[in-house]
Amino acid sequence: MRPLAVSTGDPAGIGPEIIAKAWDMRVTAGLTPFCVVGPASIWNGPVAVINDLAEVDDAFNHGLPVLNEGFDDHKGAPGKPSEASARIAYQSLTTTAELVIAGKASALVTAPVSKSQLVKLGFAHPGQTEYIASLMGFPPNDAVMMLAGPSLKVALATIHLPLSSISQALTRDLIINRARITAEALTRDFGIQNPRIAIAGLNPHAGENGAFGDEERTVIAPAIAALKAMGINAFGPVVPDALFTPRARMTYDVAFCMYHDQGLIPIKALDFDDGVNMTLGLPIIRTSPDHGTAFDIAGQNIAHPGAMIAALRMAAEAAQHRANA
Amino acid sequence: MRPLAVSTGDPAGIGPEIIAKAWDMRVTAGLTPFCVVGPASIWNGPVAVINDLAEVDDAFNHGLPVLNEGFDDHKGAPGKPSEASARIAYQSLTTTAELVIAGKASALVTAPVSKSQLVKLGFAHPGQTEYIASLMGFPPNDAVMMLAGPSLKVALATIHLPLSSISQALTRDLIINRARITAEALTRDFGIQNPRIAIAGLNPHAGENGAFGDEERTVIAPAIAALKAMGINAFGPVVPDALFTPRARMTYDVAFCMYHDQGLIPIKALDFDDGVNMTLGLPIIRTSPDHGTAFDIAGQNIAHPGAMIAALRMAAEAAQHRANA
Repeated sequence: MRPLAVSTGDPAGIGPEIIAKAWDMRVTAGLTPFCVVGPASIWNGPVAVINDLAEVDDAFNHGLPVLNEGFDDHKGAPGKPSEASARIAYQSLTTTAELVIAGKASALVTAPVSKSQLVKLGFAHPGQTEYIASLMGFPPNDAVMMLAGPSLKVALATIHLPLSSISQALTRDLIINRARITAEALTRDFGIQNPRIAIAGLNPHAGENGAFGDEERTVIAPAIAALKAMGINAFGPVVPDALFTPRARMTYDVAFCMYHDQGLIPIKALDFDDGVNMTLGLPIIRTSPDHGTAFDIAGQNIAHPGAMIAALRMAAEAAQHRANA
Repeated sequence: MRPLAVSTGDPAGIGPEIIAKAWDMRVTAGLTPFCVVGPASIWNGPVAVINDLAEVDDAFNHGLPVLNEGFDDHKGAPGKPSEASARIAYQSLTTTAELVIAGKASALVTAPVSKSQLVKLGFAHPGQTEYIASLMGFPPNDAVMMLAGPSLKVALATIHLPLSSISQALTRDLIINRARITAEALTRDFGIQNPRIAIAGLNPHAGENGAFGDEERTVIAPAIAALKAMGINAFGPVVPDALFTPRARMTYDVAFCMYHDQGLIPIKALDFDDGVNMTLGLPIIRTSPDHGTAFDIAGQNIAHPGAMIAALRMAAEAAQHRANA
């Protein structure tokens, strides 16, 4: 299997620290070879500078493989994001994604960036996910965000919208398209045949028969009927606050949620240190730790590498599933 | 301390079973004396029929104290709700609440009822909470719903509304009024001095500086400023999906949530078997297990009494705090 390609993220954040810690733990954590793309000068530990991804497998046991071609040296201060650190994040993300798109690496793992810093450089996408989709010529709607942890997987019908706009953004076709992408990805990337997709309601008590909202009847139930007709094992609309109890979580492979916080609140409550953000629906595999740059704790050697390790493992497992298919 | 008064709930549901199981476990669970109000004929285990609440303390160790004055005999089938079972639920709730309002019992603990069954009898309130408020002449807005479990307490700014209506229902005054009621109750009923009230944002990422909604700036932040000016230890708006992580839960005594599922999703994910619904802002103490009638499992002796036991304990502790004040 080709190596994984990891972006540096904003070097003023905890990205480089958790990547280095993951490399340190490569044997006990069972990690497959990966390289990081960015300036070699930001790393303190053992580094193996490489010129080509073909060198990663040999280099991986000697030092953290770093592909730094095209990057200027950088020595910024942890916790102090700057235009220079944001530029590295942007360049690393672009280069790493292009390597994966070109097939030179088997999957993309992205470290955290600061959206507000990237905006200053003209980055006009809602997030890394949509930017990666655009690099491949895919509309952002075709990239589905899934969060996965040991307790739970959640996929999102809508992402970054005001709460008051969710109802008007939810359509039957949107739910069908994104739930179908989710179901296909669970088979292709996780090897789950005929995955069980629990579709959440939108309103409290799933609207209680229309007493508090009718999107369950007018939009969500028709989408579920269409998904079933396509042979997808979807069910619902499930009462949202009943969907994440320990017993309910045994009944599905993924909870398909109508809005950001409906899915992110339970997974962060249950799986905060190990949550992985995975992009579904694109030709490439992409994972990311489900946390931000954490500028406030950068440089103190206290960042927890659990989510980065989980992101590396999930990317490798998905690549293996695709290779075996 | 005067005994607790417990309503029967719908006798076709699991209410009687979990009340009987709680009584069985009264010593190991450390329960203070309580009586249940309703027909004695629905109980299978040892029952001590009483005529006055003054008899509860003596009767409690011999059998489940039952005050059945005014109730006709009833022998309905578990799992089969009927007009007769709903009528008992309604009558028991009313009688029990009146006993507590009259000061003959120290707190009200309500077993689950079926809203859709009660509606057939002309019950026109959104739930038991609002009905109890109306019995005391309080507007329903003055009754704040709090859910409490071992991991977390959440109080709600809005309850049974369509998701699309939440934004327009949220006002600065509503948040101030309900958060103030919440803070006062944590002191009066839980003995927490200067309780820490984490106020959630409404939108994903708490709006990300207005990029996805502006209620944080226009409504929630001004309400927090007003609460602080009143001497209440409120802070926020907190990014909703960051509010329920294990570390975040250490920073507050209660999470004050903008809408039903924002609060109920995390508490049911974390504390499903032990969640208590407590009504704040009324002169009386009222708790309830945070689950429904569960008609589907009634009569099988498999219902878990954890939430009922937790509701009985929380009611007793609140009564003790008020007695000591």
